[in-house]
Amino acid sequence: MDDRILGEFLGCVFLILFGGGVVANTLLSKSKGLNAGWLAISTGWGFAVMGGVFVAKSVGSIQADLNPAVTLAKYLLGGIYSLSDLFPIMLAQISGCFLGATLVWLTYLPHWKETRDPSLKLAVFSTGPAIRHSPSNLMTEVIGTTILVFGIGAIFGKATNNGAISPAMGPYLVGILVWAIGLSLGGSTGYAINPARDLGPRIAHALLPIAGKGKSDWTYSWIPVLGPVLGGIIGAYLWKTFL
Amino acid sequence: MDDRILGEFLGCVFLILFGGGVVANTLLSKSKGLNAGWLAISTGWGFAVMGGVFVAKSVGSIQADLNPAVTLAKYLLGGIYSLSDLFPIMLAQISGCFLGATLVWLTYLPHWKETRDPSLKLAVFSTGPAIRHSPSNLMTEVIGTTILVFGIGAIFGKATNNGAISPAMGPYLVGILVWAIGLSLGGSTGYAINPARDLGPRIAHALLPIAGKGKSDWTYSWIPVLGPVLGGIIGAYLWKTFL
Amino acid sequence: MDDRILGEFLGCVFLILFGGGVVANTLLSKSKGLNAGWLAISTGWGFAVMGGVFVAKSVGSIQADLNPAVTLAKYLLGGIYSLSDLFPIMLAQISGCFLGATLVWLTYLPHWKETRDPSLKLAVFSTGPAIRHSPSNLMTEVIGTTILVFGIGAIFGKATNNGAISPAMGPYLVGILVWAIGLSLGGSTGYAINPARDLGPRIAHALLPIAGKGKSDWTYSWIPVLGPVLGGIIGAYLWKTFL
Amino acid sequence: MDDRILGEFLGCVFLILFGGGVVANTLLSKSKGLNAGWLAISTGWGFAVMGGVFVAKSVGSIQADLNPAVTLAKYLLGGIYSLSDLFPIMLAQISGCFLGATLVWLTYLPHWKETRDPSLKLAVFSTGPAIRHSPSNLMTEVIGTTILVFGIGAIFGKATNNGAISPAMGPYLVGILVWAIGLSLGGSTGYAINPARDLGPRIAHALLPIAGKGKSDWTYSWIPVLGPVLGGIIGAYLWKTFL
Repeated sequence: MDDRILGEFLGCVFLILFGGGVVANTLLSKSKGLNAGWLAISTGWGFAVMGGVFVAKSVGSIQADLNPAVTLAKYLLGGIYSLSDLFPIMLAQISGCFLGATLVWLTYLPHWKETRDPSLKLAVFSTGPAIRHSPSNLMTEVIGTTILVFGIGAIFGKATNNGAISPAMGPYLVGILVWAIGLSLGGSTGYAINPARDLGPRIAHALLPIAGKGKSDWTYSWIPVLGPVLGGIIGAYLWKTFL
Repeated sequence: MDDRILGEFLGCVFLILFGGGVVANTLLSKSKGLNAGWLAISTGWGFAVMGGVFVAKSVGSIQADLNPAVTLAKYLLGGIYSLSDLFPIMLAQISGCFLGATLVWLTYLPHWKETRDPSLKLAVFSTGPAIRHSPSNLMTEVIGTTILVFGIGAIFGKATNNGAISPAMGPYLVGILVWAIGLSLGGSTGYAINPARDLGPRIAHALLPIAGKGKSDWTYSWIPVLGPVLGGIIGAYLWKTFL
Repeated sequence: MDDRILGEFLGCVFLILFGGGVVANTLLSKSKGLNAGWLAISTGWGFAVMGGVFVAKSVGSIQADLNPAVTLAKYLLGGIYSLSDLFPIMLAQISGCFLGATLVWLTYLPHWKETRDPSLKLAVFSTGPAIRHSPSNLMTEVIGTTILVFGIGAIFGKATNNGAISPAMGPYLVGILVWAIGLSLGGSTGYAINPARDLGPRIAHALLPIAGKGKSDWTYSWIPVLGPVLGGIIGAYLWKTFL
Repeated sequence: MDDRILGEFLGCVFLILFGGGVVANTLLSKSKGLNAGWLAISTGWGFAVMGGVFVAKSVGSIQADLNPAVTLAKYLLGGIYSLSDLFPIMLAQISGCFLGATLVWLTYLPHWKETRDPSLKLAVFSTGPAIRHSPSNLMTEVIGTTILVFGIGAIFGKATNNGAISPAMGPYLVGILVWAIGLSLGGSTGYAINPARDLGPRIAHALLPIAGKGKSDWTYSWIPVLGPVLGGIIGAYLWKTFL
């Protein structure tokens, strides 16, 4: 298999194992990290991205997008991906997120039965709105993803001599960026900012025999896909314009 | 447009989108980060500055001040800015902060109506005193900004061979400095330490159709402008004397 | 004595003094950090590993494993350890963890008598399951250790030009990795992910005259030994396959 | 004045302004960071040391000890200080801590009157025991300072090619070390681990007209002086032996 595909796949396994894991630790009954709070969740997700990027790069994906919206933005910017790359890479991202979510389920296996509220279980897998309002929720995801894409461009742009930063600091700073997005922009929709991050685990939620699970909320599922896709396009446009 | 102006503008958009965002996440009703606490707020603001500096530098502002008090201090130190630079740069900073605050309002759009207390809504935009006492509040802002300016001088001074640090570590450490100022010096006035950071979003608060908003507290608004200006002057003087 | 042995020993003293210390600070009655929460605990453990690695490397252990599961994985990968190295290194690791736990006991000496619940005292020394279920608990430890070993491989692999990162960033990122594992994968079993980390302090708990202590829960003790050993083997296999 | 003396003085001003400041923010009534918790306090102190080291180095103190126990340890290790250096440096450290504490008092000026409990006010300035027991408290301070001195030796030792780390990473890692000591070893005595950090602010507490202040607890004051001195000696001995 193409190293890029494998890298995106394994990086996304890490991404969701850590990202879903910190939510499980914070929300599932009897977990030692119960009620650790939003700072813990956003820190965990920041490190999830950081770790996923290291894994993806080590396996052979120089880009280490872990996110179809980022991959799409880079495709639109040109020079990195051809159109035929997109489908296998995005499929690898979604599959990796599916497998990562399955590992979260296994890591916290005895806790699902102990947790009453099915919405908390779904929250370990996929995002949901604090206040359900489709246009607002979509806009929030668009803004968050635009900032993610533009921020990545800034980290690897002129500020660091066009990416001439140490190979350790790059993934580190991308992780901090996601940490910041979670802290600042994540409170209204739970910041999917990544179609694969939401869709892969939602499929896992639908398929896995999770004790006492509820619905997978497919009526909301298009927002954390469409929002990040639009944000990726806008982010790429702003990148081209300003960076 | 001058890249410096554009950089300061876009950097300030980032600054306030992240900085106001973390306050919104922590204070607005039904937000997922409700009551995340002061550590979350100060962490978010530290990352806001870090991200804003990366954006400003990537767009082309080598200085990446994002703060009229810092710009003023550098002007007083000489060699970087001419007098005619000051007005357009500061206007760009204030405008960027205005736009950033507008994006915060949009990111958390459904939450304003749900939040009862108008003072919490204003707190997302601008600072206010824990105990209203003008001379004390002014002194607190002076001390905080003096430390900010002097601290920036220390980071890029002899300690790091006069700024010969990696281009990634510079903005990173400035972000940590602001994180620290928030943790340690921010509890009494909410640490504006930046006239644009307070004034731009306060104008946004006054102009935007925020659901159920109250007054914009203009009687306090001179303190987070004058205090940082004085702090910038003192900081520049101390810098010249000791660094 | 062999510098490698001494390094592993002293590194493990640091590891447990910091790691057990943060749990003591958070759980023991009247401690100033009482109820500081899971984010504090996982941060402290991340720094414990970071500090332990610096100490081990400074004393002369280039590998700085501090963990028999990591040592075993590296042995299986070949080229670093011979079979006869394993026993003395692992013994040094367990002994260091024993001494570290003893120092935690001394650091918090007046607090043991003040703390009623014996299970909290044991938690300062060794891990225990949130929900006791041997196969699940074992699986959780296997997953966590697999990720630890694979993650270390990723940090020092192609992503950083095969370890050509600065000598300061290596231990720093390993510490972040453990911080992340604690946040995300630690809520169900308390993440031993290291046989010495659990066994050494458990022996200390059994032997030390801790005021009002209870049983040392030896019936659980095989899980945080076997789980990490299996995880180390799987991690080494995945490393060999993908990195 | 000698740059070394000035550096230690100004570095200690920073140290206590940030370190005392985060305690004030967390403990004083009506402060915005009230009850931010131990993680906030230890984070703030870690950054306080980091910032103080940057300031001291920038002003001209290459050593940037900010701590008589560290200065003493380096004197015992030989080659850095002569006996006649010790008194002026330590006096500068204590004076800087005094001035820093005075600035904390001013930064939070309106909050002292609002805070009922005098022990909380003293806690902003100086450390105190969670459980008063002189031998145990002394031992805790000895252990903490030993670890501090040995940890500094490890950071700048073989692990980083004898200090050949970037000038930005050195102070950063020392700050993380202090952050870790606070999280893990600070819960029983409040981790003075520095005679000047405790004595300077205690003198300030005794002399300043703090609204509603109580006693300065001089009966405890010898422990955070003697403990760190002993810890510095032991740390230097261990350093010489192992590093």
